[in-house]
Amino acid sequence: MYAPLLAHIARYVTLTEAEANTLLSYLKPQTVARKEYVVTEGQVCLANYFVLRGCLRTYLLNEKGGEQTIQFGIENWWLTDYASLDNHAPSQFFIQAVENTEVVVFEKRVQEEVFSQVPKLERYFRIILQKSAAAALFRIKFLFSLSGEARYHHFNNAFPGFVQRVPQYMLASYLNFTPEFLSKIRAKVGHT
Amino acid sequence: MYAPLLAHIARYVTLTEAEANTLLSYLKPQTVARKEYVVTEGQVCLANYFVLRGCLRTYLLNEKGGEQTIQFGIENWWLTDYASLDNHAPSQFFIQAVENTEVVVFEKRVQEEVFSQVPKLERYFRIILQKSAAAALFRIKFLFSLSGEARYHHFNNAFPGFVQRVPQYMLASYLNFTPEFLSKIRAKVGHT
Repeated sequence: MYAPLLAHIARYVTLTEAEANTLLSYLKPQTVARKEYVVTEGQVCLANYFVLRGCLRTYLLNEKGGEQTIQFGIENWWLTDYASLDNHAPSQFFIQAVENTEVVVFEKRVQEEVFSQVPKLERYFRIILQKSAAAALFRIKFLFSLSGEARYHHFNNAFPGFVQRVPQYMLASYLNFTPEFLSKIRAKVGHT
Repeated sequence: MYAPLLAHIARYVTLTEAEANTLLSYLKPQTVARKEYVVTEGQVCLANYFVLRGCLRTYLLNEKGGEQTIQFGIENWWLTDYASLDNHAPSQFFIQAVENTEVVVFEKRVQEEVFSQVPKLERYFRIILQKSAAAALFRIKFLFSLSGEARYHHFNNAFPGFVQRVPQYMLASYLNFTPEFLSKIRAKVGHT
């Protein structure tokens, strides 16, 4: 069941069988039913989550009490709230399953032990965090420089099929426009 | 001259003197005069930059040809375009000195050699990238959920004094409002 994670790690670093087994002995699987939470606002985030199947999202409640989705995590993505995880501070976000989701749980309390036993994982996470940093910069670029319609098409091209998987209101808030605007764009391109 | 970088690294990992010397043998200092660039759009970003003194910013040109600042890097911050650096792809951004700036240049072409000789640096960058990931999430949170005025006060509290260091138009675009709006807020709190 951990095969997708091991395959993902193998893209960046080569673990021996013993190292892979050491890592796996510290991980555990978790099933998160649709709409269930792995983190809620005010609670300390205790783990980093790797999505095996399904989809998680990070959202916040804005001043008007509306849900603002700020991050999606699909298959082969790690999702967590590093601010909460690293500082053992209450999270300012919710991390919720969009679909029935299977994750691998890498708990903070075993993190240092895992890194000291399998130092190659420092490299693996360093590399995927660089990819996240690149993605975060593009995210801000698109929010600032593209029209709403261009943001939709960019996102749809980058993650084909994904726009069909999530409720419109989540996608609309992620792309920073209204659900009505999203309906209009989708009607135009024949998606509805 | 590399003392601030070594002190920054020492917050997260303990290098032996030999390891520190190995690292330093691969780095070089660079002076970037105010308004000069270390990366321009269309050019491949070749290094990661650690700010010893001064300030860099990342910006893009939006559809109207306006400069949209999306990142500042002050003392003790690393700044680069990871999308360009990691993939040897043309950058979609400009990285420019806001003030006369002294940086440490960690070139991509020596990166693998440095990491293989001083593997602890994988950990150092893994940890600071987690901090960047946390900051990026808060950045998006503030853009989405706070009013313009609240964004200004938050930023001013988080980086006291910094708002006086950069031209108003850069700060306004970073906080995603107009320079006129910024003048109004600053007048209110007696900053102008």
